[in-house]
Parts: sequence; structure tokens; C-alpha cells
Amino acid sequence: MSRAKNFARLPGFRDFPPEELVLRSHLFDAWRRVSRRYGFLEYDGPPLEELDLYTQKSGEEIVGQLYNFTDKGGREVSLRPEMTPSLARILGERSRAMPKPIRWFSIPQLFRYERQQRGRLREHFQWNVDLVGGPGVEADAEVLAVALDSLRALGLSSDDIRARISDRRLLSALLRECGVPSDSLDATYPVVDKVERESEERIRERLSGEVGLPPEVVDRVITLFQAPSLAAVADAFAHREEVAGPLAEVQEFIQILDDLGLAGFVEFDLTIVRGLAYYTGIVFEVFDRQGEHRAICGGGRYDSLLELVGGEPLPAVGFGMGDVVLSDLLIERGLAPEYRRQVDYFLVVIGEEQAGLARRLATSLRRSGHSALYGIRGQSVRKQFSAAANEGARQVIVLGPDEVSRGKAVLRDMVSGDEEEVTLQSLMGRDGAGEE
Amino acid sequence: MSRAKNFARLPGFRDFPPEELVLRSHLFDAWRRVSRRYGFLEYDGPPLEELDLYTQKSGEEIVGQLYNFTDKGGREVSLRPEMTPSLARILGERSRAMPKPIRWFSIPQLFRYERQQRGRLREHFQWNVDLVGGPGVEADAEVLAVALDSLRALGLSSDDIRARISDRRLLSALLRECGVPSDSLDATYPVVDKVERESEERIRERLSGEVGLPPEVVDRVITLFQAPSLAAVADAFAHREEVAGPLAEVQEFIQILDDLGLAGFVEFDLTIVRGLAYYTGIVFEVFDRQGEHRAICGGGRYDSLLELVGGEPLPAVGFGMGDVVLSDLLIERGLAPEYRRQVDYFLVVIGEEQAGLARRLATSLRRSGHSALYGIRGQSVRKQFSAAANEGARQVIVLGPDEVSRGKAVLRDMVSGDEEEVTLQSLMGRDGAGEE
Repeated sequence: MSRAKNFARLPGFRDFPPEELVLRSHLFDAWRRVSRRYGFLEYDGPPLEELDLYTQKSGEEIVGQLYNFTDKGGREVSLRPEMTPSLARILGERSRAMPKPIRWFSIPQLFRYERQQRGRLREHFQWNVDLVGGPGVEADAEVLAVALDSLRALGLSSDDIRARISDRRLLSALLRECGVPSDSLDATYPVVDKVERESEERIRERLSGEVGLPPEVVDRVITLFQAPSLAAVADAFAHREEVAGPLAEVQEFIQILDDLGLAGFVEFDLTIVRGLAYYTGIVFEVFDRQGEHRAICGGGRYDSLLELVGGEPLPAVGFGMGDVVLSDLLIERGLAPEYRRQVDYFLVVIGEEQAGLARRLATSLRRSGHSALYGIRGQSVRKQFSAAANEGARQVIVLGPDEVSRGKAVLRDMVSGDEEEVTLQSLMGRDGAGEE
Repeated sequence: MSRAKNFARLPGFRDFPPEELVLRSHLFDAWRRVSRRYGFLEYDGPPLEELDLYTQKSGEEIVGQLYNFTDKGGREVSLRPEMTPSLARILGERSRAMPKPIRWFSIPQLFRYERQQRGRLREHFQWNVDLVGGPGVEADAEVLAVALDSLRALGLSSDDIRARISDRRLLSALLRECGVPSDSLDATYPVVDKVERESEERIRERLSGEVGLPPEVVDRVITLFQAPSLAAVADAFAHREEVAGPLAEVQEFIQILDDLGLAGFVEFDLTIVRGLAYYTGIVFEVFDRQGEHRAICGGGRYDSLLELVGGEPLPAVGFGMGDVVLSDLLIERGLAPEYRRQVDYFLVVIGEEQAGLARRLATSLRRSGHSALYGIRGQSVRKQFSAAANEGARQVIVLGPDEVSRGKAVLRDMVSGDEEEVTLQSLMGRDGAGEE
């Protein structure tokens, strides 16, 4: 062993001491509880995968953002930057034998080598929910409902958050109706994605310069995004055959979310574009209404991915919801759980002669499902009470020679301060949450 | 995107589809439940740390077994092969402000680049339990009790498993009593570690050859290990001053485990040596009694580590228990939980007109804490019942036009096959486990 050295955690990584883990556990519990209400089953995959699994989906450009390396067996590997490729790989091996739809969720830790900024670390936990093998729009609605219901379960209402929804097929049909040629669509998406953040002048410049659209087409696209409500779009374009199909689907999607009690959260927003090569239908992002944070959640329909990594061609819809932005929002709104140390019983001994009894009582309490602690050998009674307070003991059992000789102990409620004498027998038989 | 390719997971890594995750969750639940009964608080740290954090504890030799690499910022980093260095680093920053003892646990995934063999993968999950700042032997006993109690909670009894315990100070005192010079102790430990697995002849050869002990010292060491029970050791050596202290401590350790109801699991075994540079007092390993598996759990007292990574000098005792060997053992003994898909309600609609009602009922059931699913649009009633069976629905609610027009539905118990007519009103108000 070499000499002492001070170590720090890597930049962009987090430690979770107990007082910080409590919020993470609170999120995970809500995510798991709501997933199960919607019939989703939990799975997990390895945090390390072949590098190709990620470049296959996202192209070589992604490598610059990965924690990738060559392992000792010469394999090119990467820490997972996202879960969907692992999901696709796992389902690729087994989905043919499984009844559809497949409803799976997971809570992986993900890794990206990114420049650090608020709400963006180099690792985060992300709840992934996917419904695979359900082609209809009710699958999309169920998946978004899981996301929104988890946020409701965490205390956020439709006053706090909103889901902005769109549809890739509808957007492309509308752009084509405006006169954008099919082979200019891919160049148009990133520009309209910025409609809310850039000036109209800049958008016009980009549409004519970068995309090369003629002035009358630019005018029509600008007009489209000036009144981007679903009603306005329906009024202007519902008679157009190419638009009618995806438009009806978005309308039905919103109707189903209304049945699911979530219409108040949902807003149609044509500017939601998301990943170009990946999504094939409805897309959505969930934001805080005040617009102070990055997206809480993003997802949509991706019908081509499973086939791409060697699986059965299967329609799929899913989302990812990270822990970082959501945690910030819950703290800001006073919705994070209070951290409180808590133990059911703390056994205080007056003399060392009661130490064995204290341990036997602790054992009995623990086996009936309670948490129980006892003091360190040789501690004064005062120190033992102070330890009990530190541990957040709800009740203290005081074992003194007189009481014990009569088969008794003193039980003190640490909240009320009330004391009562109880039999040792009754302490041995306390009912708890335990199964043993 | 490039063309489809078949991907496999990396060798030594596991996927956890839902039917396999269920056993892992069963372990994690038991570990968490028992940790809390003993007052331990959960923490977590990053899966990636500075490489030096591991070489500082274990020397440069460990690098050959690590998933280490240079990150994009030029840092030498490694996937964590064990949790204790991270624990020491985290406590190093904060322990001075914390009341002692500190009782913390974690369930990290750990990574080693090892040759693959049964019970040894390249990743595993390991429950880490540590009690820091408790110098007395009751701390050692509490920690081993947590380990054994979790195995009890998982259904294993003292007929299935045993904890072999020893003490580094006692072993070194006994070896010195036998005449082993202090500077030959480090060379002697690895030889006596093999006493049970190698022939007496081979042990003699190694003690005289490798270690260089004279024949009469070799004889005494061999005699010591021929009757290595605690009683035999006490008879032969209790009068020796150097032995008496550690011997009394081991005796008290066993007495405390008896108070904690666990003496039946514990056996004194001088051949338990464990990591040379690391442990400073009591050490233990838990095995299946039939000796068919590797150790389920190993740990002990390590009083120097925290200081080594730049923290406060603090006594500490802890263990690690992996998921792989334990899972194998539980499966072998029929103690693994059965995997069963299960959902509380499945809503079947006779016609598409009831689809909206089905969704509203599902919402209501979900908000009261139940799990509820409904069929895919356009599915026949037969297909919907078959989907309900696939999902493990306990009750099916059939929504037909006649019943619905009378404010009713048919509730079928899928286990008994019993059917009853119930009001839609009563379904909307079902009490569940939910808080909403």
C-alpha cells in the first residue's frame, strides 16, 4: 500500500449519501409503482455493450460523446449512453416467442461524456418505458399516460407541467402541402425545431438559405407555424388527403388521453421534432410550464429500430425520463421527501449486565420486522440516549436492574416523552411488518 | 443508419428480462429490509472512479483485472471492482461531521475482467454493509448478524449455511507462539489459507521451502491446524499473554452472536485468512454447508483503510455478499420466487363503443392503486380474454352494451371462473393500495 492521498469523485458523477439517495429512491418507487399499474414489467441490461450497438442506431458521430474503450479482450465497448439499443438487442433474441404487446420498463444509469452544465451530468438515471408490438395509437397514449401519471404520483399537476405532442408523419405531410420537396424535409426539420427560439427573420433566412426553399414556400411554412394549433391545422388542411390520416390519428391520441384523465396536461405543438432518423409517428416531450428546465421526458413511436439491430420488425413506442431535471423540479416545488433517520426501537442499558438481554430483545424485535438498535458497550446512559436521538429512535426501551429483575422494562416514546412500564414478555412478542 | 446486424451481449455480462429480474429483486428486497432492521442506511456511489483509488488500496497488480481506460479528458479511470474504496472516499469528505458509528449499506454492480467460470462473471451485484467508527467486537457481531439474518430471511437455515470465522490478530499471535518470525508471517498466511485444500506433505514443503521455517516450527504449525477448534486453541494457548487478548475477543464475538440468535451458524476456523493487507481483526466467510459453492459472503474488520484514502482514521467492519452464488443456491434449494405475470384487472369490451368507458374505468382503478389493462382496439372478445390470461389478470371486467346501458358490468374471477354483475359505480370506487 502506498501513502495516503486525497481522492475526489470524477467530474460529472454523483455520490448518493443517504440524505441524497432518499430522493432518488422516491423517484424510483413512484416510477415502479406507476409502471406496474399499467402492466409494465421491469427488466435490466448490462451497463457495458459493444460500441457498434450504439453507432448502428446513431451513426459514428455519437462516439465523441461516449465513454468507449477497448477492453482487455480487444473488444470495442462503451458504457451505455441510452437503454433502447439494449432493449432492442434483448428483444431481438426472444420477441418472436413472446405474446404481444410487450410492456417493459427499466431504470438504468446512463453515461455520456458531455460538457458539464446545469441539469446535465455525465451520468444519470433514466426511467425507460416501452410498449412493443402495439401498432395502434392507443399504445402511444398508454405510454404517455404512464409518464404523466408518474409525475402526478410525485405531486406535479397540470398547472406544473405539460406534454407537448406532435407527429412526424403529420409534420412531413404539412410541410409537403406547403410545397417543401420530399428530399428537403430532412433539412427543414432542424430549422422548424427552432421556431420558438429564433426570430422569424432568422427562420426565413435558414429556410431559403440552408434548405433552399423558394420564397412562396417559405411564406407558407412561416404561416403554418404562426397558427400551429391542432384546430387551425385541421381547418386549413383536413381536406388534404395526405394530411387527413395523421391528423385523425393525433386527434384520436388526444381523445384517448382525455379518457385517461390526462387531457389537461397535453398540448399539440408542431415544433416538437426530436431525433431525425429514429421517430416515425407521434412524438412528445414533457416540460415544466414555467419553461425553466430542460425537458423532463421525451419519447414517441419508433417502428424501425428493432429490425435494425437484428430483431423481428415490430412497432414500438417508448420514452425516457431522467432523474436530474425531475429532482430539481421536485425540490423547487417543495415536493421532495424530507430526509429523516428513523429506527423503531433503541435499547438503553443501565449496566453492562443488561447487554445480553438488550441483544436478545433487539433480535426478537428485528425478527418481527421492526428496526432495533442498542448502544455501544460501556456507553453512559446519557450517551445512549443521545445515540437514540441521532438514530431517530421512535421508542427507547430502558433496561435497568430493578425493572429487569421484575421482568419489566421502561418504554419511552421519544416524541411525546411518555413513559410506561411494560413486561419483557410483551416486548419479545411485538407484532411488526416482518414475515418471520 | 447502416444495415441490420445481429448483436450479442458481452461475454460475462447478463441480461435481466423480467422472468430473471424477479430473483434479483427478491435478493435486493431482502437485503434492504434486513439492513433497515439493523439501522443501516442506503447510499450509492459512481460506477466509474479514478483508477488510483483502486491501486491505492490493492496495489498495481489489480489493474490486470480491471475495466480501466483513459477517458476523453485524459483521466485514468476504472469501472468499480469493489465498493469499499468509494465508501472510504465518500466518508473521507464527510465523516468528521457525522455521529458515530456510521451504519451504511449499498447494492452496487461491480466489474472485473476475469477468466469466466461458474459463479464468476465479469459483473455482479454485491450487497455491501459497513459499520464505521465502532471499535468494539459487538460491531463485528452486528455486521455478521446482518449477513446471516438476510440469508435466514431468504429461507436458508443453519442446516444450509455456516459462517466460518477467525481473527487476524489471533492467527498472527498463534503463529508467533509456534515460532514463526514476525517477518515471515506474510509469507505464512497464503500457505495456511490452503490447509484444507492441500495435503499435509505439500503444506510442510511450502512452510519449509517457500517460507523458510525450521522443521520444529513447521511441526508446531501443522499441529496447530490439526486441532483448530476454539476450545483446543484455548486449552493450548490461553495462558500465553499475546494470545489471550484476541482469544477473549473471539470468544466474546461468538457469545454476542449467540445473544443475536445466530450461534448455530457460526464455526471458528483458523484457516480463514482473506486479503492480506486489508483486514486487521475478525474475518469471516459464509459458505453453503455442502461446500458446493464459492463463498456467499466475506468480510471482517479493516481499521486502516479510511485513513489510507485520505479520510479520518476510523475503525471499520464490513462485508460484501454477491448475487451470483446466492442466486444459484436459492434456485438449487427451491427458494427462488416463482415468476408469475400478474395484473389486477383486464377490461374486455364487446364493441368499440365501450372502449372509452374501458379506459375511464382503467384510469379509475389505476388511481386507486390497482393495475389495470384493456385490450387493443379491434381485438375480438376471444383475443381479449386470451390477452387477459397472458397478462395474468386476476379479474376480467366485461363491458357489454346491455349491461353498460343498465350501469352494470360483468366481473369474472379468472381463478374460480365465478362471474357476477356489478355496478360501474362500484368499479369506479374500488379501494386499492394507492395513495391518490
